[in-house]
Amino acid sequence: MISALVYADETAVAYDDLASARRAVGTTWVHVAEATDDEIDAVVAAFDLHPLAIDDVRGDVRAKTEEYADHTFVLIKSASLTPGETTFEKEVRTTPIAIFIGRDWVVTMSTGAAKPVQRVMDAVERGDERLLHRGPDFTAYRVVDVVVDAYFDLLDDVETDIEEIEEEVTVSTDIETLEKINDVRRDLLSFRKQVWPAREAIGVLARGDPQQIQPQTEKYFRDVHDHLVQIVDLTETYRDLVSGARDIYLNTLSQSTNEVMKVLTVVATIFIPLTFVVGVYGMNFGESAYNMPELGWTYGYPATLLGMTLMVAVMLVHFRRRGYL
Amino acid sequence: MISALVYADETAVAYDDLASARRAVGTTWVHVAEATDDEIDAVVAAFDLHPLAIDDVRGDVRAKTEEYADHTFVLIKSASLTPGETTFEKEVRTTPIAIFIGRDWVVTMSTGAAKPVQRVMDAVERGDERLLHRGPDFTAYRVVDVVVDAYFDLLDDVETDIEEIEEEVTVSTDIETLEKINDVRRDLLSFRKQVWPAREAIGVLARGDPQQIQPQTEKYFRDVHDHLVQIVDLTETYRDLVSGARDIYLNTLSQSTNEVMKVLTVVATIFIPLTFVVGVYGMNFGESAYNMPELGWTYGYPATLLGMTLMVAVMLVHFRRRGYL
Amino acid sequence: MISALVYADETAVAYDDLASARRAVGTTWVHVAEATDDEIDAVVAAFDLHPLAIDDVRGDVRAKTEEYADHTFVLIKSASLTPGETTFEKEVRTTPIAIFIGRDWVVTMSTGAAKPVQRVMDAVERGDERLLHRGPDFTAYRVVDVVVDAYFDLLDDVETDIEEIEEEVTVSTDIETLEKINDVRRDLLSFRKQVWPAREAIGVLARGDPQQIQPQTEKYFRDVHDHLVQIVDLTETYRDLVSGARDIYLNTLSQSTNEVMKVLTVVATIFIPLTFVVGVYGMNFGESAYNMPELGWTYGYPATLLGMTLMVAVMLVHFRRRGYL
Amino acid sequence: MISALVYADETAVAYDDLASARRAVGTTWVHVAEATDDEIDAVVAAFDLHPLAIDDVRGDVRAKTEEYADHTFVLIKSASLTPGETTFEKEVRTTPIAIFIGRDWVVTMSTGAAKPVQRVMDAVERGDERLLHRGPDFTAYRVVDVVVDAYFDLLDDVETDIEEIEEEVTVSTDIETLEKINDVRRDLLSFRKQVWPAREAIGVLARGDPQQIQPQTEKYFRDVHDHLVQIVDLTETYRDLVSGARDIYLNTLSQSTNEVMKVLTVVATIFIPLTFVVGVYGMNFGESAYNMPELGWTYGYPATLLGMTLMVAVMLVHFRRRGYL
Amino acid sequence: MISALVYADETAVAYDDLASARRAVGTTWVHVAEATDDEIDAVVAAFDLHPLAIDDVRGDVRAKTEEYADHTFVLIKSASLTPGETTFEKEVRTTPIAIFIGRDWVVTMSTGAAKPVQRVMDAVERGDERLLHRGPDFTAYRVVDVVVDAYFDLLDDVETDIEEIEEEVTVSTDIETLEKINDVRRDLLSFRKQVWPAREAIGVLARGDPQQIQPQTEKYFRDVHDHLVQIVDLTETYRDLVSGARDIYLNTLSQSTNEVMKVLTVVATIFIPLTFVVGVYGMNFGESAYNMPELGWTYGYPATLLGMTLMVAVMLVHFRRRGYL
Repeated sequence: MISALVYADETAVAYDDLASARRAVGTTWVHVAEATDDEIDAVVAAFDLHPLAIDDVRGDVRAKTEEYADHTFVLIKSASLTPGETTFEKEVRTTPIAIFIGRDWVVTMSTGAAKPVQRVMDAVERGDERLLHRGPDFTAYRVVDVVVDAYFDLLDDVETDIEEIEEEVTVSTDIETLEKINDVRRDLLSFRKQVWPAREAIGVLARGDPQQIQPQTEKYFRDVHDHLVQIVDLTETYRDLVSGARDIYLNTLSQSTNEVMKVLTVVATIFIPLTFVVGVYGMNFGESAYNMPELGWTYGYPATLLGMTLMVAVMLVHFRRRGYL
Repeated sequence: MISALVYADETAVAYDDLASARRAVGTTWVHVAEATDDEIDAVVAAFDLHPLAIDDVRGDVRAKTEEYADHTFVLIKSASLTPGETTFEKEVRTTPIAIFIGRDWVVTMSTGAAKPVQRVMDAVERGDERLLHRGPDFTAYRVVDVVVDAYFDLLDDVETDIEEIEEEVTVSTDIETLEKINDVRRDLLSFRKQVWPAREAIGVLARGDPQQIQPQTEKYFRDVHDHLVQIVDLTETYRDLVSGARDIYLNTLSQSTNEVMKVLTVVATIFIPLTFVVGVYGMNFGESAYNMPELGWTYGYPATLLGMTLMVAVMLVHFRRRGYL
Repeated sequence: MISALVYADETAVAYDDLASARRAVGTTWVHVAEATDDEIDAVVAAFDLHPLAIDDVRGDVRAKTEEYADHTFVLIKSASLTPGETTFEKEVRTTPIAIFIGRDWVVTMSTGAAKPVQRVMDAVERGDERLLHRGPDFTAYRVVDVVVDAYFDLLDDVETDIEEIEEEVTVSTDIETLEKINDVRRDLLSFRKQVWPAREAIGVLARGDPQQIQPQTEKYFRDVHDHLVQIVDLTETYRDLVSGARDIYLNTLSQSTNEVMKVLTVVATIFIPLTFVVGVYGMNFGESAYNMPELGWTYGYPATLLGMTLMVAVMLVHFRRRGYL
Repeated sequence: MISALVYADETAVAYDDLASARRAVGTTWVHVAEATDDEIDAVVAAFDLHPLAIDDVRGDVRAKTEEYADHTFVLIKSASLTPGETTFEKEVRTTPIAIFIGRDWVVTMSTGAAKPVQRVMDAVERGDERLLHRGPDFTAYRVVDVVVDAYFDLLDDVETDIEEIEEEVTVSTDIETLEKINDVRRDLLSFRKQVWPAREAIGVLARGDPQQIQPQTEKYFRDVHDHLVQIVDLTETYRDLVSGARDIYLNTLSQSTNEVMKVLTVVATIFIPLTFVVGVYGMNFGESAYNMPELGWTYGYPATLLGMTLMVAVMLVHFRRRGYL
Repeated sequence: MISALVYADETAVAYDDLASARRAVGTTWVHVAEATDDEIDAVVAAFDLHPLAIDDVRGDVRAKTEEYADHTFVLIKSASLTPGETTFEKEVRTTPIAIFIGRDWVVTMSTGAAKPVQRVMDAVERGDERLLHRGPDFTAYRVVDVVVDAYFDLLDDVETDIEEIEEEVTVSTDIETLEKINDVRRDLLSFRKQVWPAREAIGVLARGDPQQIQPQTEKYFRDVHDHLVQIVDLTETYRDLVSGARDIYLNTLSQSTNEVMKVLTVVATIFIPLTFVVGVYGMNFGESAYNMPELGWTYGYPATLLGMTLMVAVMLVHFRRRGYL
């Protein structure tokens, strides 16, 4: 699905035909959403794009900035957190968005829907002043900016998950909680894998290395770069929070085992000796007067019960002092 | 709330009107506390501040130093440790303070109360000699210095918390102790997130890169930079102390489980065999003379009791040797 | 086993004799598979290769790029995951492939089968256009590219193993699962040991440092370099996944111990007191009317049974509330 | 307490008066031990020392080297391991020693006793040849060298502690052992905090950056720098040893719990079934001939005892095979 | 023990007298094994060696390369794994070997036996061609090369230990296994401490910084440097393997505790309820017909036995399903 837009001064005109869009005066923006191989080939031919860059559009590669003879290639990944297929709940889905910046044209391509690009394109069509005047590099900046802003939304989702986990860990020893923790850890891992190269790639633009980036646009890319640095920071912070939550979870489990053991110990320690005592008076030595005279005593039974009650009382006090109860 | 101050040589004069403050001879300092959008716009217009910097004043971004055409923008965060909203006890609250340093003016802005700035402004109004003579960059230094000094107060609070935790961990296995540990860990994490970029941002000033920083002021920024390095060091040290406390806590719990197990083992090991013995003489084989002759012995009962007492004695000695008692 | 190929413009000719291949016009490619010492010596003499490089062909050294007077030496390791000899299941097997790039010749050598080289050689013989025209450095690039692509296959195998492990860890506490985890950890470790130096070595070529690398080939090496960076990234991510799986495994074990303890505690806590009660009424105090009057009561037995049933009911409710059941 | 010494060629003369010491020909060394504010002010005035450096003399800051207009400021911390105030046994005490190196003078200041400086001063007074001839930077080197040598003594103390701990951990599960481990960890942490900046600060001198450092003195500072690098290495190694000791300690505890559990399991597993058996023959079914005929058998009792002995024998063999005994 | 050798072109001549060796034409190599202070002083005087370097020969310092006015000083440590004095089994013993490279001379010194040097010296005396022609820097390279090759032997020993440990950890929970693990960890730690500075020191020679290193020798030092990098890599890999083995060890212990608990739980859970049942029929309620009518039933006893057998069967099935058996 190829859309072409040529804009200059105050108007933006949509073209159906790639060739005439290329010839029109102004900044030409060609966008290919859900790009098929034929569409890619057509655009590559029209703008003489470098074949290695095209391989990257199709493959699953890291974000990058590459300078070619007469155009700069920027690959950025849009990312969102979606329900996954595995036992773990969610996963980070990414769509690569390729941006080629030429002298007076910009080409964007994606094998996915590339909604962020669409949003910027709509703004141009509506005649957004900031975009119309500032050339192809500023358009590229806007696309990158929208993609990076969506990273913050993803991190907000992650934060919500972490807060939910933090509430669970102090009360639950359910293995599902650990799986949630691991799931968030995976998400952060796989997100970080996207963000680190993006930071590097945008850093090249922020330093204004490629000749297609005008001096006044550098500061804008520097701003996006700052956002990416902040995102990397947040990712690290969230990783630390998740690892703290995991510690509490594991401790809750140890705590639980400790509690269970205390219950067992208290019950066993109280009743096992008592059972021994009643066992003694269950022995059949009672036939001769000398053996087990207690059995013949008038108050033998109540005395035994009283003795056992005292034993229990002593033990309860003892256990309370040791903090078992 | 806009305050404007113009100071030269020996006097500092407060102005109500931004425009006349701008025109007055001397160093013009405009401060906007609890800045509203209108106030920000007014100051931006008066001093021609860069729009990207203004976005940073409003947003929640990292400390930074950015050089623009005719002014340098420094963003620093004042931080304090306050009771938080979550189950965890305290949290690090930060207020961004934006400082714009021009040739003969300095603008400070904050969406919060920005008490540190107020304190420096008071000193200027009182006619503090050091501040009156040395130009806008030295004023900026003083603001940064006051903000960074407050970081040490925050770390003192953290240290007090750590000391309290260190006393608790050797006696308590309460999960609240672990939550306290996690809370401090979070605080240090979130504080470090503020300090690292601050160190970088002030490093730029300490190297004297921006042209608004005079050579004799560099050393002062270098001093603040040294403080920030020390603060980063302290933060790392506290993280290590907290992690040491956590180890002791977890060990106290294992220790407790171990103790509980020993009690159970001692009691069960002593009484279960005894219960078996008394069970033997509770059997009903006693009808024929051949079966269970012990029951007929004159001293059968006392002999059994004696035997069991010996068993207990042997076990107690054994357990004492193994260190269970 | 020495193969020699000379290719120019549109044809590739195989030569049996090293000397005449060296003299022929075009790019000369000599490949030595399963190289014996004699074969190596012959090729070294024909192309005047540096002795230190030859030591590296025979030894087990890290990937490297070394520039000599008139040729560049690249050592790359082809790697695959194969069933190992130890108790641990699989291991990473590597074969060093040495590539010498001269002005109009390229020499490849390996003490192993070096299938990736063979595949490129076949493509040249079949007359692959891209390879015929672009000189020895492009041929070297193709060999490196095929080797690096095989790294992705190895990582796919590792990913399959990790997925299998992730399914196992939540249900099994078998020590074999931990051994599988350790096995994958070892594989990743030993693979990373191969990839890091490769990244560095190809980086030298990507920067175009050696004079044998033509400017238009640099971008291709840069592409391989990007792949290696991505492979390093993947390796780190997989290490993190494995470590997450290990955490879940260890937790499953703790969980299991906790469960076992709960069962024991519930059973013991219910029956030990009951056993005590029945023990009481097994005592032989019953001879005088005063002692143990319960024994004489008409409904003594059913009352005791009822009492015990109530005790059990109370305990079951209690345990359910504490989450033991 | 101000001491002043002027030395040249072969003699060192002590002066009471700061002003005349300053005027005398030769290298002037002024040392202020247990410096009061008045003393500091007097020396600052006499040598025109930079105010920021003076703040560092009084405060608790990191080691540093700072170059001012006509003198270089070096701050180094002397460190020793002393019994601490907290529950943890020892702590690292540091005293800052400030060294100002001028063209023909050196000033040393400390708010503490600064014994290392005193030792160097005594050597000068005794007429140590090496020191008399080589100027103020060599004197500074000697002071730094003596301070750094004392670091090795501190690490020797730490090593002794670690050896003691390593002996304890395999036999004791006492929580005091863990506290000792944590104490040493704290000491190393707080020592490392001192050594890292010192390494950096002396590195500046080793590179001979400040103009007060003569080329022939650089090598000596490089030697001290090497010592500091070695000290950092040792600190890291000791940290690893301590963490290894901690692992063994924790394992000893797990080991102990495991042992306790085995004892309990063996005793309970042997006697609980036996108690059941004797319970069977304690049942009162014996009234009719059909019920419990065993009770009437002539050898019923010995047969039961024999049966139980066999059960015990089987279990003991079983437990020995499983390694419980 | 001083040995002196002068070699040129095709012959190597041993000298007894240091002075005449110094004067002879050719490369002079003086080696001092088990150097006493007098011997060191004699050689220092003859070759005018720098005093700081001499301190390093005697002390226990890190490997280093230092350039002096007319000679380069290289300190390298030969290392071997020997049975240690402590409870832990083995330790890394190192002997420093000092190498001074002059224009036409090389001096080697060691306070130990320095066998690697002796081996190279023997090769020179035997007239090894490679060594005779290439000057003092190549001789130095050979010494370093032999020392570094011995590092691989040490690592082979470590690998053997690790393999032994890996076999033990899955079957043994003996604390001696953990001590072995810790021992290997210590060895690797202390070995790495030697190798890191060596890598750095040889790196200086590999870059050919010192003027005594001829361009054609650089590549040889680069080769040694590659070996050192590989050794550092191996050391890291072994550390990871050891830490993996430690995890399995700890898990085996947890596994064992889990198994013990299961045995206890199964036995207790089966027999405690049975003991209760037989206790019930051991009660003395049997006097009136209404109480405990079961005792009077004809098949009361076999019915009870049957009931208990069924209970056992149900429990066994249950336990098997839960994986306890």
